[in-house]
Amino acid sequence: MKPTVVRKVARADVGLVKTLGNLGVATVHEAQARWGLMRPYMRPIYLTATAAGSAITVSCHPGDNLMIHAAIEFCREGDIVVVSTSSESTDGMFGELLAESARAHGVAGLVIDAGVRDVRDLTEMQFPVWSKAISAQGTVKATAGSVNVPIVCAGATVRPGDIIVADADGVVVVRRETAAEVARLGTERFAKEQKSRERLKSGELGLDFYGLRAKLSELGVRYVDELE
Amino acid sequence: MKPTVVRKVARADVGLVKTLGNLGVATVHEAQARWGLMRPYMRPIYLTATAAGSAITVSCHPGDNLMIHAAIEFCREGDIVVVSTSSESTDGMFGELLAESARAHGVAGLVIDAGVRDVRDLTEMQFPVWSKAISAQGTVKATAGSVNVPIVCAGATVRPGDIIVADADGVVVVRRETAAEVARLGTERFAKEQKSRERLKSGELGLDFYGLRAKLSELGVRYVDELE
Amino acid sequence: MKPTVVRKVARADVGLVKTLGNLGVATVHEAQARWGLMRPYMRPIYLTATAAGSAITVSCHPGDNLMIHAAIEFCREGDIVVVSTSSESTDGMFGELLAESARAHGVAGLVIDAGVRDVRDLTEMQFPVWSKAISAQGTVKATAGSVNVPIVCAGATVRPGDIIVADADGVVVVRRETAAEVARLGTERFAKEQKSRERLKSGELGLDFYGLRAKLSELGVRYVDELE
Amino acid sequence: MKPTVVRKVARADVGLVKTLGNLGVATVHEAQARWGLMRPYMRPIYLTATAAGSAITVSCHPGDNLMIHAAIEFCREGDIVVVSTSSESTDGMFGELLAESARAHGVAGLVIDAGVRDVRDLTEMQFPVWSKAISAQGTVKATAGSVNVPIVCAGATVRPGDIIVADADGVVVVRRETAAEVARLGTERFAKEQKSRERLKSGELGLDFYGLRAKLSELGVRYVDELE
Amino acid sequence: MKPTVVRKVARADVGLVKTLGNLGVATVHEAQARWGLMRPYMRPIYLTATAAGSAITVSCHPGDNLMIHAAIEFCREGDIVVVSTSSESTDGMFGELLAESARAHGVAGLVIDAGVRDVRDLTEMQFPVWSKAISAQGTVKATAGSVNVPIVCAGATVRPGDIIVADADGVVVVRRETAAEVARLGTERFAKEQKSRERLKSGELGLDFYGLRAKLSELGVRYVDELE
Amino acid sequence: MKPTVVRKVARADVGLVKTLGNLGVATVHEAQARWGLMRPYMRPIYLTATAAGSAITVSCHPGDNLMIHAAIEFCREGDIVVVSTSSESTDGMFGELLAESARAHGVAGLVIDAGVRDVRDLTEMQFPVWSKAISAQGTVKATAGSVNVPIVCAGATVRPGDIIVADADGVVVVRRETAAEVARLGTERFAKEQKSRERLKSGELGLDFYGLRAKLSELGVRYVDELE
Repeated sequence: MKPTVVRKVARADVGLVKTLGNLGVATVHEAQARWGLMRPYMRPIYLTATAAGSAITVSCHPGDNLMIHAAIEFCREGDIVVVSTSSESTDGMFGELLAESARAHGVAGLVIDAGVRDVRDLTEMQFPVWSKAISAQGTVKATAGSVNVPIVCAGATVRPGDIIVADADGVVVVRRETAAEVARLGTERFAKEQKSRERLKSGELGLDFYGLRAKLSELGVRYVDELE
Repeated sequence: MKPTVVRKVARADVGLVKTLGNLGVATVHEAQARWGLMRPYMRPIYLTATAAGSAITVSCHPGDNLMIHAAIEFCREGDIVVVSTSSESTDGMFGELLAESARAHGVAGLVIDAGVRDVRDLTEMQFPVWSKAISAQGTVKATAGSVNVPIVCAGATVRPGDIIVADADGVVVVRRETAAEVARLGTERFAKEQKSRERLKSGELGLDFYGLRAKLSELGVRYVDELE
Repeated sequence: MKPTVVRKVARADVGLVKTLGNLGVATVHEAQARWGLMRPYMRPIYLTATAAGSAITVSCHPGDNLMIHAAIEFCREGDIVVVSTSSESTDGMFGELLAESARAHGVAGLVIDAGVRDVRDLTEMQFPVWSKAISAQGTVKATAGSVNVPIVCAGATVRPGDIIVADADGVVVVRRETAAEVARLGTERFAKEQKSRERLKSGELGLDFYGLRAKLSELGVRYVDELE
Repeated sequence: MKPTVVRKVARADVGLVKTLGNLGVATVHEAQARWGLMRPYMRPIYLTATAAGSAITVSCHPGDNLMIHAAIEFCREGDIVVVSTSSESTDGMFGELLAESARAHGVAGLVIDAGVRDVRDLTEMQFPVWSKAISAQGTVKATAGSVNVPIVCAGATVRPGDIIVADADGVVVVRRETAAEVARLGTERFAKEQKSRERLKSGELGLDFYGLRAKLSELGVRYVDELE
Repeated sequence: MKPTVVRKVARADVGLVKTLGNLGVATVHEAQARWGLMRPYMRPIYLTATAAGSAITVSCHPGDNLMIHAAIEFCREGDIVVVSTSSESTDGMFGELLAESARAHGVAGLVIDAGVRDVRDLTEMQFPVWSKAISAQGTVKATAGSVNVPIVCAGATVRPGDIIVADADGVVVVRRETAAEVARLGTERFAKEQKSRERLKSGELGLDFYGLRAKLSELGVRYVDELE
Repeated sequence: MKPTVVRKVARADVGLVKTLGNLGVATVHEAQARWGLMRPYMRPIYLTATAAGSAITVSCHPGDNLMIHAAIEFCREGDIVVVSTSSESTDGMFGELLAESARAHGVAGLVIDAGVRDVRDLTEMQFPVWSKAISAQGTVKATAGSVNVPIVCAGATVRPGDIIVADADGVVVVRRETAAEVARLGTERFAKEQKSRERLKSGELGLDFYGLRAKLSELGVRYVDELE
């Protein structure tokens, strides 16, 4: 594919994005039948980091952050920049200066399948980043890439305008087309979990609550007092 | 081995467990001649997490937490649930709802050679977990496993009723049969270290304190002012 | 090479070391043309850890910390002990007692291409450590090694007396011969970044600021409104 | 997404597939501007393995090969089965019996982002497999998944009917829509490389041949006889 | 545990060991309900390596092969030496000279959760080794360990006298007490697979053969001609 | 350090290089007191690969092989090109065309702390390569680096003109200054091993041969018939 920057990205409804963000990664992931989770090596730089927004996608050459600069031009309030590299890299492709620039254009967070640096400054700025690595290794601006084309980031396909939800449990992608449905199912799930929580807290066993005793029996699990 | 749930587990003396917990992982590990330490990829979800208790062991199919539910029925105050999978997995097999359930049955912590999710909630609950990964990936309840049979978790053999001691340095297993002896040796070691600490703090060299100069000489280590 | 302890190490100027420490790892790394960074698997035991000092180098047998004891004898105020092993190890070769001893001899921090233990105590002491692993696994004192010879630590060559700068972004090595020049270039860079920060914060694009539009064009990056 | 088996898959032209297979992974990858390569952890079970065909995609639960069985029903002569799991797994989800079944339905090879077993039998059968791991660990048939939906396999998006080219250098995906163009560009590249080979073999330097001396100079690379 | 060498090891019946070896790792693993498999990082040094025998267990300090020498004294015809280290190591703890010594005492192979060296010589000798790494790194003989005590090797518990079966698919452990039963079940399984092979080869689908269509339906898998 | 190409490299004596190559990696590594071994992740692309020669060192930007082209100009008969990258990379930075060019200039092999491609062609050419990865991922020629400056490759420092010895056990570096001494010690070791081999083959125990029984006793290893 020829290196390409796509200017226009359709974003999801802001209220929908907020709902999904409030539900959190684990609930959203469940609500869409466990689809769209990035690999667990993607970790936030600080434990309280959370973010939800529309994806601006960036495909870079490893060790080269030229296209992140190109992407910021098309960011809007609440967007999340999602960066992949054409091959594996741990270089610190994003740092505090770029974060200042991104924030000035409304960017709410960064998800990068590579490294990040200036993590103490980013933590103080409360600019949330999920990355594969933390590394001071700087990058060049020498090789072409693309902005707002579909990418694979940490094992998940991300299209521009997809909704990204990220917190301490990881990063999940929601397709814009299914976002309303996922929000609805997630909200239902959340309500249901509130009730489950009360019963489990009171000591009712999951075995009884979820009706798993029959399952165990059907699977041939035997109960004994002691191993002979 | 046929999938089996064993109901009865002999626990160690509570006072002994408490003593071992206070000594901490490093001292206990030393006191039993460096036996029983899990691999260092097992990390606590928050740095201040500590736990000591009797092991309830669980062997699960990867990506399936059915048997954790089965295990909670046989937990008592102060137990630690130790989970292994029949092959490598990073799935989030345990989360906040299960933690509420476990806590209602007295469980003092979880050690899992797989993933965990809802880590912010678990941190707020101060429910200590040591795991290989943090992942929102949910699990099914479809395949049989065992409870309270001997397992291998992160490189260490754990039998039901073994004592688990866990803190920021990792997780160590103590056999019930040797726990009293380990506690005694650990307590002696701790007292001895108090004295060593004072002498080292005052500037006495470990070389002199531990009598290592002769060792270095015997091993043929030469001292020079400069490399020629 | 015969196991050797070298007694004399030429240190860098204290003011220079302080300047480099204030600049931080990312800026120092850039200022010396991205040379001397250790691999990103080297992480601080607590996020606010920072250190800068002259390297006392130690080469150990894996699972054996005898030579760290030998090294402390030649440490002075502000030194940083840098430890490598002759083959890969995650053992906890350094802990709280050794830290007390090291601190009594002026040591300002430890960088170790292996494991560390007692991390909660070390954090309370605010004794900064960068390591590959956290592990309670103890070590023996049975095999010879060297002190103050050139070593490779986490992918970087370190010579005794080299300046080590370490913070949340990693660890970088500066040769004593080039330290003054690196400090000068780093300070210039820092000043320049202050100005860049203001312009980026105000919303000026990196594309314009760094003059990257021509580059993108020259590299054949095409701009489109939508992907056809 | 609801678990779904899609019956109909549009395949690429057989001649085109053959051409791409003959060009090999490295040339095809170059011909499509370095797009579509799977991560290098995907390795053939024997060094001489090569395959090219249309993708039948399978998404499985980790440790569960139910959906591979479901996929074989829709395979045709020359197809390549491409398997991903919903989370990381190294289980041996495919072995000799399944290979006999697959071969009976025309399958020309398997690409699996998990484990494979019976590798000696598969090697004797000359049934080519690219996998992340070799493991005897068996799998259950207990959890739903999908067949012939878009998947991410080892970092690359694969849609049913995409062309898979695999050899000792790895695995690359070609979109059916661009296959003819990629074949054309790859063939041109191959012809060009034949000429380059002759000149390089005769001793002409790549520096001169590719005109890189100016580049080096422009980048500020200095030439010296010795390091001062 | 005090460092201990146990002289007497009860071995399994030679015929039984041979039967298990002929069945191979995958079949034996299935026949004992998927128990006892070592982690898949254990790989043979040559693809045709196979071995089956009684385990002589060795627990070493990392980087120290003293106890392998101690173990050979108690080896007999057909034994397999199984080595673990007290913490992770990739050192080449075994090479051609030790293999000559081991062979002279009847040893039929080595399984080591660490490194091996002289792999070309070992391949020429057809001395089968399964290891975590290949490394020329030599080892010392300075620290005590144990022989013929229970160990954990690559995630599996091995007791002296357990039967080890190893081939291109990995390494599996069989308890002496259950070996006859496992051999019987494995032989049955092998016979059954012969029949399955014929039917699958003839084109019968696993779906029909294993009766999985009902399962898919019960799990809610839908069939469609095309994705809408 | 400014990007620099150094033209002149002092090579070691050809006979010496040949002697070291014949001794092999394990013996050479022992002969220089276990110094200079690269990390065990460096593997040959075919098992019978062996090479010995003088190092031409190359430092590249990850994903960029410009400087390998620059290096070939200064290669001579029997040289070995040793490539490192400024940060971690698995890209296929070297392939068959470059191998033809390198061979035309006398290059006897390549050692690269990154990826290689065209491995079947390279194997057919019998051009030996040791690498971290095999990957079809191509590289650009856009960023400056250096030739014939000291580098760190896979954990070992390599200076231009150092002797590289590589075989199935890995890669070791020998300083030109110590090469004669290492060759002498290695040859002695080899002769000694011949004698040891005979005695070990005849069944004499390493315990007796190396006099280890006293060591075991001194270390407190106890011998028992059975574990109580």
